[in-house]
Amino acid sequence: MRRVAIGQAGGPTAVINATLVGFVKEVLDESSLYFIKNGYEGLVKGNFIRGDRTILDLLENHANLPGACLGSGRYPREKKNIELSVMNLKKKEIDTLVIIGGNGSMEALREIKNEASSQGYDLQVIGLPKTVDNDLGGTDHAPGFGSAAKYVANTTRDISRDLHAMRNFEQVRILETMGRNAGWLAYASAFYKNNDYDGPHFIGIPEQPIVKENLINSVDAAVRRSGHALVVVSEGAHFAKEKLTHKKVVNGRTVLGGVSTQIENLISEKLGLSARGELLGMNQRSCSALVSESDRNEAYAVGIQGARFMKEGKTDIMVSMYRKNTSSYEVGYRPIALDKVISKGESLLMEYFIDDLPSYNKWLKPLIADSSNYPAPLITD
Amino acid sequence: MRRVAIGQAGGPTAVINATLVGFVKEVLDESSLYFIKNGYEGLVKGNFIRGDRTILDLLENHANLPGACLGSGRYPREKKNIELSVMNLKKKEIDTLVIIGGNGSMEALREIKNEASSQGYDLQVIGLPKTVDNDLGGTDHAPGFGSAAKYVANTTRDISRDLHAMRNFEQVRILETMGRNAGWLAYASAFYKNNDYDGPHFIGIPEQPIVKENLINSVDAAVRRSGHALVVVSEGAHFAKEKLTHKKVVNGRTVLGGVSTQIENLISEKLGLSARGELLGMNQRSCSALVSESDRNEAYAVGIQGARFMKEGKTDIMVSMYRKNTSSYEVGYRPIALDKVISKGESLLMEYFIDDLPSYNKWLKPLIADSSNYPAPLITD
Repeated sequence: MRRVAIGQAGGPTAVINATLVGFVKEVLDESSLYFIKNGYEGLVKGNFIRGDRTILDLLENHANLPGACLGSGRYPREKKNIELSVMNLKKKEIDTLVIIGGNGSMEALREIKNEASSQGYDLQVIGLPKTVDNDLGGTDHAPGFGSAAKYVANTTRDISRDLHAMRNFEQVRILETMGRNAGWLAYASAFYKNNDYDGPHFIGIPEQPIVKENLINSVDAAVRRSGHALVVVSEGAHFAKEKLTHKKVVNGRTVLGGVSTQIENLISEKLGLSARGELLGMNQRSCSALVSESDRNEAYAVGIQGARFMKEGKTDIMVSMYRKNTSSYEVGYRPIALDKVISKGESLLMEYFIDDLPSYNKWLKPLIADSSNYPAPLITD
Repeated sequence: MRRVAIGQAGGPTAVINATLVGFVKEVLDESSLYFIKNGYEGLVKGNFIRGDRTILDLLENHANLPGACLGSGRYPREKKNIELSVMNLKKKEIDTLVIIGGNGSMEALREIKNEASSQGYDLQVIGLPKTVDNDLGGTDHAPGFGSAAKYVANTTRDISRDLHAMRNFEQVRILETMGRNAGWLAYASAFYKNNDYDGPHFIGIPEQPIVKENLINSVDAAVRRSGHALVVVSEGAHFAKEKLTHKKVVNGRTVLGGVSTQIENLISEKLGLSARGELLGMNQRSCSALVSESDRNEAYAVGIQGARFMKEGKTDIMVSMYRKNTSSYEVGYRPIALDKVISKGESLLMEYFIDDLPSYNKWLKPLIADSSNYPAPLITD
């Protein structure tokens, strides 16, 4: 029987466990399964759990739960750790290594494979995509993003009504989303917007430095029109001609956050309005109540497809998702070379989406799989 | 026909519109309705909208939407404004004033009634309760709280799994809830907790100043046991023997917030762990996806009951909710004197709940009306 090790790496998504369960179900009968604890840390330290009946029975109960049920996390990707990972895989006589992860995880997978090859160890490696930021190259989108997008869209729609009702007290709110260096998530905030009164009234994304004057003018116009303004900004956005300063290093990793405070100060200063910044927080990637059904189904399918590619002997690949046609939404799954994923680097929001929000919303719609727009506010003056 | 003015005041809840729609439906046939725009501001400025067919037809579409669809907000409760309110009510020949609101709104209603009486103007006044903080006296609980509690409970449950999965990167997260000077909402965070691994591992509430040593010990023990610790703290909580400093005045109102940052610093300093504070934000009172069905139904029923008490000629009262029996949950509605509501002041979490979380959870269960506990984490060591 093929000996397969699978792990989850990087920040969890609300559907990362569905991918795990999809994969496991498809390979169960013809593989010896080993679960890697806490992502790359488990590889480096040799923390494997034998996928016996007990754990497999329990696993299914976690398919629809947030978090990464094997443990995930971050771990330094240094040469020594890559070597230790290969050593541990060898020791367990692992034939196939499968990692559910994002950009960094795919790079680590490539490095492990290279190290294995240089030792003459024939290791099959397969990557299964996940990210809430949608910044993974070589795929139309990745599981996890649809649910995070739904969370951001719903939150913007709901908070917009709250802010509108409170406009004689507070006029401006700035919601800061995840997204790292990409604006996909922040742009999803406009998904349900169907009138001028509801927010967002301005979206700041990393791909397009924020021109202060434009921001101020948009907020001012929105407050004049509807008494309030809702700004959505991606954690990686920054002002034009200014460096991104809102970041700190946590355990060796750059964590973004704080641009909403800068905008809050700018708006208070320039417009004299009451403004408050709000970080949307961990719910973006873990809120079980706002999981997108299509996202969950696709996450599960990505697991199944990865297992099929494995059985076909494919290696050094990631499962990629593509749209089969343009007239209606149907997703196809195909293998894409890890090299290609990595060389593409971070996937940013395309200019044709930045310039054409309706076309972005059309692209996004099947991923969010919901269309519960609100009627226009009852009272708008 | 009786001329009835109704308005919404203070911070919205996810179900405040249901109360409005319940009331309106019940009085429609025998009253001339006037909607007050933006809460007390509308009373002071005389901003009324005639409840004609057009707006009544639209209104129902807003019953299940967050925000306050008439506009709510805050407005200075000074003598002059109370006089102006009475003047405007008189001018419109209003027989009955109905306000959906919390503590402050009930006090204002009382003041308006007193001013009207002193002018010999026979004004019927009725208060309909709403608050996410559950700090309104004279009622078992108030509409809006159940949904906010469900939001806090779900968020804690979901984020706990996320944090657990990331424990090699970040060990401690501090979630800061709403609640003003009461711990009801923060205490709801433990609703789904059914094992030692999941959070919350410590709850800080205003009723019980936080002893730093206890907090540190709880966090330390949780991290040792399960690798992570989730702390939940109410915005109004503070350290024992220290003054509450995390507040600022926004448009004349004290806004709390920031205790999570103090805890974050304390934990980093004392335990050397990576800790991050997170404010749960406006979604607590506006997330449509986590509305409690029973809360929505009760909010609607409060509107209907208020209308019935109005038709019975009751005045100077608020609709109060009580539990009809102890063996099963059944809510009754009765009028309670506004004077009594006001004299009771802010309703705080009772000591017998603080000391007995299971008994609090039992009390809370029918309000959240959900029991989707998670199984214990798959991997706990």
